[in-house]
Amino acid sequence: MASCFCADQKSNTKDVSTSYGMQGSDELVRSDDPRHPSNLICSLCKLFYYNNWVTGTGGGISIKHPVTGHIYIAPSGVQKEQLKPEDMFVMDPVTESYIRIPELYKPSACTPLFMSCYRKRDAGAVIHTHSQHAVMCSLIFDKEFRIANIEQIKAIPSGKKDPRLGKDINLSFFDTLIIPIIENTAHEEDLTDGLQEALAHYPTSTAVIVRRHGIYVWGPNVDKAKVYNEAIDYLMELAVKMHNLGIPTDCGIGEEKQYLKR
Amino acid sequence: MASCFCADQKSNTKDVSTSYGMQGSDELVRSDDPRHPSNLICSLCKLFYYNNWVTGTGGGISIKHPVTGHIYIAPSGVQKEQLKPEDMFVMDPVTESYIRIPELYKPSACTPLFMSCYRKRDAGAVIHTHSQHAVMCSLIFDKEFRIANIEQIKAIPSGKKDPRLGKDINLSFFDTLIIPIIENTAHEEDLTDGLQEALAHYPTSTAVIVRRHGIYVWGPNVDKAKVYNEAIDYLMELAVKMHNLGIPTDCGIGEEKQYLKR
Amino acid sequence: MASCFCADQKSNTKDVSTSYGMQGSDELVRSDDPRHPSNLICSLCKLFYYNNWVTGTGGGISIKHPVTGHIYIAPSGVQKEQLKPEDMFVMDPVTESYIRIPELYKPSACTPLFMSCYRKRDAGAVIHTHSQHAVMCSLIFDKEFRIANIEQIKAIPSGKKDPRLGKDINLSFFDTLIIPIIENTAHEEDLTDGLQEALAHYPTSTAVIVRRHGIYVWGPNVDKAKVYNEAIDYLMELAVKMHNLGIPTDCGIGEEKQYLKR
Amino acid sequence: MASCFCADQKSNTKDVSTSYGMQGSDELVRSDDPRHPSNLICSLCKLFYYNNWVTGTGGGISIKHPVTGHIYIAPSGVQKEQLKPEDMFVMDPVTESYIRIPELYKPSACTPLFMSCYRKRDAGAVIHTHSQHAVMCSLIFDKEFRIANIEQIKAIPSGKKDPRLGKDINLSFFDTLIIPIIENTAHEEDLTDGLQEALAHYPTSTAVIVRRHGIYVWGPNVDKAKVYNEAIDYLMELAVKMHNLGIPTDCGIGEEKQYLKR
Repeated sequence: MASCFCADQKSNTKDVSTSYGMQGSDELVRSDDPRHPSNLICSLCKLFYYNNWVTGTGGGISIKHPVTGHIYIAPSGVQKEQLKPEDMFVMDPVTESYIRIPELYKPSACTPLFMSCYRKRDAGAVIHTHSQHAVMCSLIFDKEFRIANIEQIKAIPSGKKDPRLGKDINLSFFDTLIIPIIENTAHEEDLTDGLQEALAHYPTSTAVIVRRHGIYVWGPNVDKAKVYNEAIDYLMELAVKMHNLGIPTDCGIGEEKQYLKR
Repeated sequence: MASCFCADQKSNTKDVSTSYGMQGSDELVRSDDPRHPSNLICSLCKLFYYNNWVTGTGGGISIKHPVTGHIYIAPSGVQKEQLKPEDMFVMDPVTESYIRIPELYKPSACTPLFMSCYRKRDAGAVIHTHSQHAVMCSLIFDKEFRIANIEQIKAIPSGKKDPRLGKDINLSFFDTLIIPIIENTAHEEDLTDGLQEALAHYPTSTAVIVRRHGIYVWGPNVDKAKVYNEAIDYLMELAVKMHNLGIPTDCGIGEEKQYLKR
Repeated sequence: MASCFCADQKSNTKDVSTSYGMQGSDELVRSDDPRHPSNLICSLCKLFYYNNWVTGTGGGISIKHPVTGHIYIAPSGVQKEQLKPEDMFVMDPVTESYIRIPELYKPSACTPLFMSCYRKRDAGAVIHTHSQHAVMCSLIFDKEFRIANIEQIKAIPSGKKDPRLGKDINLSFFDTLIIPIIENTAHEEDLTDGLQEALAHYPTSTAVIVRRHGIYVWGPNVDKAKVYNEAIDYLMELAVKMHNLGIPTDCGIGEEKQYLKR
Repeated sequence: MASCFCADQKSNTKDVSTSYGMQGSDELVRSDDPRHPSNLICSLCKLFYYNNWVTGTGGGISIKHPVTGHIYIAPSGVQKEQLKPEDMFVMDPVTESYIRIPELYKPSACTPLFMSCYRKRDAGAVIHTHSQHAVMCSLIFDKEFRIANIEQIKAIPSGKKDPRLGKDINLSFFDTLIIPIIENTAHEEDLTDGLQEALAHYPTSTAVIVRRHGIYVWGPNVDKAKVYNEAIDYLMELAVKMHNLGIPTDCGIGEEKQYLKR
């Protein structure tokens, strides 16, 4: 679904006058700063919706507040493009108990998976989409999604750090991006085992594809998580097109023509 | 058609000064509440238009007012993205006679189909699109659209209810979503027989595909109808892609690779 | 190209302070009415741009003023999404000479084709796009684009009129929509002969496809021309998909499965 | 990714109160004129983002100020849809040294390639995208992208000039558009040799495709560069579709049917 539905964006945040489950907890989610996690979750979910990544209440997102460390999580089963800041769950990062629970909503079934990424990878944000490119790649590829020699992979971290500057080193053009594919389970929270196993086996990966389901992508902060998610989605889209041309996504440069369907 | 055309959205609702066919009936359609059926029909039609679901005057939508029970219906043969609240037909749910008729417009040919969903399924809203994914699936599939083992089907109700809470239980990941496909007729109103037959044979279905035409989707309220429609459209889009890969949409998990075209 | 670029729409119409080639002729193009031809051409070109129909200065549009009969034409070789009302050419319908010429711009090479539709078909508006669906259909089909038994063709006029009401009768679901395909020429104005021949041979057609080029669509007024163009584009898009499935676009209902590629 | 994300466009340019690396240099990038290079780079990058041309920090753009000759360049590794005027690098065209360096950002790795186009082709603007159509064409085609007999190629300059008026003459419908394809390198700046060689061998080309990477397009001013980029992208998109139909993109008019896959 490629679309535009710009109306009423502002009205979404207008009439918040009711009080919520935990008294005074609105301070945790109300801010004029568009970069506050509550606001960013809303604006990113709109973007993801128009990319066909979270339609029909699919997908989810969580951001760790860079100062307080509080973990913000979009609720379960809601229309993601209509989220309001006051719909957010907020969790204490140490006790892992909710310090704010919105009325009406249930916690996201993705929560244990988000928490795994925070704990095991020191993530600053985690994005979960139902991208059709991810589902398609999970049908085409077996245990790993692999793509090599495409400029866009240079947006993805290699897992190595520059020994002097301590900064992440990204993949180079000649590297192969590998993303593990885990099997889906009946209940989203049961994915945690598979995810944790993948995190252990692929210590440098910044994403995990879930077969016939979608993808989880994380990063040290929300901007990087967004960029990684976009770059990986671009690469998965391209991978499906390459498959349709007959070209293996990790074939050597110059070998394309011997595979190309005519 | 994937597009954005955000201009003039507000001006659409501005200059309403003329009086309409039934005196005083503007009270039925004028409201500052963006959640009023008249306003929701306008905003949803814009969304549907930019999804290529109702271009060229195609498709339609009806919402039952959750308080008054009045049935709001978009008129026939108009550009759906340009609808204004005062263009709506309003019907009394008991007498099934119009209590508001807009000037200039004719009632939607979908009206008898909408009414079938209200009567037989206690719907709160009905969406009808000319989605190309629905038309494509009606060309690929025979009597039923079937898809299994895709996370997104969990957005669709199974027809069962939780015996304790009385709430709808959705399909699980391992279930098969089945949507009946009925044959199209020369006149939209003549679809009623086919639709009613499908409603009887598929008592748990929340949608009916019309061959070479489009789809009808309903739900207990407008939000659920919208979510079901988005999730089903996502699944039909994916089904066409799976067909092009050679993979049956209801094959077992792990069997994909034996079907995959290379 | 499926996209959204909503910024600066209003600023486009703001700073008009210079005077133009023909003194006082700004009265012909300046209006607060969004339905004035000058304003409609601008808003429709934005829509067409985001549909990938007129990118790279491609395509064009002309509207006849329903009251004055003046013919408004977008200029040649400009970025269609950035058009301003004061960029329009205006022609006297009787003398067929310009009564307003914008500074800087050249008349559209489509002008003789637009005029043919006004003269021979009593059109109220003519739309010309470089739709890729039209180009693709011109590669797949020979002398005629044909599609049958798809609900959306009911948006297209049959050329017959209701003898009592005098209103246009549209195609029925069981009819075949036929659009002639003419050969392209080196210069757009040289298409006139081919177009006029097609108009003569297909007296009920409301559109002509130009091979490897695009499509011309007209109607008795701008709303109908827009609706016809959208419906035909939808049908051409679907036709390409049906071709890729292996299904002839005019095969009988129920015959699809014998053609379907697996 | 086909999408709409119109929110917060204005807020991007609001809170600029900090001072930057080079004192007083904000005068170079702050302007109320939407046509100022700093503002145009921001608005074009938004457009490119929604076209899936520069997602995940990919791509870049540079514009030469038509009056001062200063060269404006978007920084490296940023989210292109979120650029602000104060993020721009500005270079003196004669000394080729920066006269403005934004805090935080690194110069674009595309800079030496942009400079080659300015020096060797007297460009007024250079656009670099990661368009998937460019990547796909680089997989399908060998040393040259070729397409003939499509109306849209008439938007591209032939390299010849009208001897009397001195104006660019564009390709005709019967011409073949040829764009060289160069091999990608590990580091973007190392592309310079390949680009310069292509510029020398294809003296009339207005673009160079980089294999498995994207495309560089330039023009005498930003409007022309934008139009060329859109027209070429349209043609590359069409070329992939023609390949999938089995039709060579430079086959003779009328020969399509002998190649067409059924």
